[in-house]
Amino acid sequence: MGKSIEDKAEGAVPERSLQLTQVMEWNDGAVHRQQDELSAEEPLDIRVGDGGGDFTPISVTMRTPGNDEELAAGFLWTEGIVEDAAQIAGVALRVSSASGKRNVVEIELGDSSFEPRQLQRNFFAASSCGICGKASIEAIRRRGLRAPNQDFRISPGLLCELPDRLREKQAVFRRTGGLHAAALFNAAGELLVLREDIGRHNAVDKIAGWALMRGLLPLSQHMMLVSGRGGFEIVQKCLAVGLPVLASVSAPSNLAVQLARELGLTLVGFLRERRFVIYAGEQRLGL
Amino acid sequence: MGKSIEDKAEGAVPERSLQLTQVMEWNDGAVHRQQDELSAEEPLDIRVGDGGGDFTPISVTMRTPGNDEELAAGFLWTEGIVEDAAQIAGVALRVSSASGKRNVVEIELGDSSFEPRQLQRNFFAASSCGICGKASIEAIRRRGLRAPNQDFRISPGLLCELPDRLREKQAVFRRTGGLHAAALFNAAGELLVLREDIGRHNAVDKIAGWALMRGLLPLSQHMMLVSGRGGFEIVQKCLAVGLPVLASVSAPSNLAVQLARELGLTLVGFLRERRFVIYAGEQRLGL
Repeated sequence: MGKSIEDKAEGAVPERSLQLTQVMEWNDGAVHRQQDELSAEEPLDIRVGDGGGDFTPISVTMRTPGNDEELAAGFLWTEGIVEDAAQIAGVALRVSSASGKRNVVEIELGDSSFEPRQLQRNFFAASSCGICGKASIEAIRRRGLRAPNQDFRISPGLLCELPDRLREKQAVFRRTGGLHAAALFNAAGELLVLREDIGRHNAVDKIAGWALMRGLLPLSQHMMLVSGRGGFEIVQKCLAVGLPVLASVSAPSNLAVQLARELGLTLVGFLRERRFVIYAGEQRLGL
Repeated sequence: MGKSIEDKAEGAVPERSLQLTQVMEWNDGAVHRQQDELSAEEPLDIRVGDGGGDFTPISVTMRTPGNDEELAAGFLWTEGIVEDAAQIAGVALRVSSASGKRNVVEIELGDSSFEPRQLQRNFFAASSCGICGKASIEAIRRRGLRAPNQDFRISPGLLCELPDRLREKQAVFRRTGGLHAAALFNAAGELLVLREDIGRHNAVDKIAGWALMRGLLPLSQHMMLVSGRGGFEIVQKCLAVGLPVLASVSAPSNLAVQLARELGLTLVGFLRERRFVIYAGEQRLGL
């Protein structure tokens, strides 16, 4: 699992993730029309089936189209609905009857003990949706998430190189300025997979699903780097896939720090040039 | 409504929005411990009552504490649950029995036709939660949102001054780097109210609630400026309060642009220095 797994799609701009439109630029009084590339944002309807042919809607999330099967599978994993890759019997991207677009993912679970309606009720009642997070550290504790690999080590110098490696690979952001990125690195600092999305949590779920569908979980020898903030829901999702290190280029929230400390995740913020701030898990940096 | 309504709390850092913690800074090999201020992130449980003493949970949203009554009231409005200020009979911030913190807002609706359980089912089924948005332009159309004030005009020069006015007032962001901001301006470009939150949608809902609770809706002579992106859910919330102009400092998504064009909102992005891009509603800028 430590070796570099090259993702062929990575680096390329996924189909439907960009859309051209005509806009008007105002520049100190001068006006001109131009073509602009927009990041795409569309609802993804995630449905779970129990093998009997019925599918129950679990979540609707606004996302940037692309890698939708990974997003749906990753979401089920990071939200604690699926806890074993073998539970997933099939994943299919479907056309929504309402929009005519490929905005539905149906996930067939082979586990006969699964009760979608019960799940749906509990899931909504507890958290509204994945984006709102499990809403409390207590709820996270009840899920039984364990501390990630305590023996993992990363040198500060290597950590500082990750943002440049992410930027080199970013395909969409440079063109639209509108997407969040998440990237997974191995212990040697090699970028394994990069995902971009209008929602940072979706970019992380896409990586979780990428790893899940390749049998790579838990990601115990890996690091995640996200653009922007490392909020509570991002920390929770990283813990769910067993990541020992999460780094971001901006500030985490207090709840993100509290959860990282309680569950033993190394949380780094303000990772810029040759500087960063360590909020939790400093031992993995050998400090 | 065109006059400047000064908000006394604005500019001050709300109680519980910041938290001190000890962190470690690594700077090119030099390590030192320091105190750091973190943006607070806590779950807010929004409950709606029908006057009989029972309250039904509608949404749990991760937010930065502060102005929580406004957030809850604004959320009910922008999500289309409340359509008339007179429907709200009472708003109370309560202590959560689980956390012991003031993380519950109970809103009493005086409207006897209101059925919280029906609402909850429809609301969750349609959109999971407010953050995920109503998930489609079709769903927005069904809500019957009307085009905002077509006669409102704003000069490009005045628009360019808004980001500086927002920055002058930002209290929390400068200290933590972790919060999104939304600011409401009147037609003269005066900043009426600024709200900051870990979630951009919450900052907008806090402003919606602020206006709702002062009887100022619709905001037909006003402009909203948000930090970061102007996504679909932000456009939807601005339309819900009748705003004719939304500006952001970064890129909107394609769905945000599509919704703004369909419903006649002026949508401006990349508002920086003396330059911006107009995605929809250019007529209000007199171009």
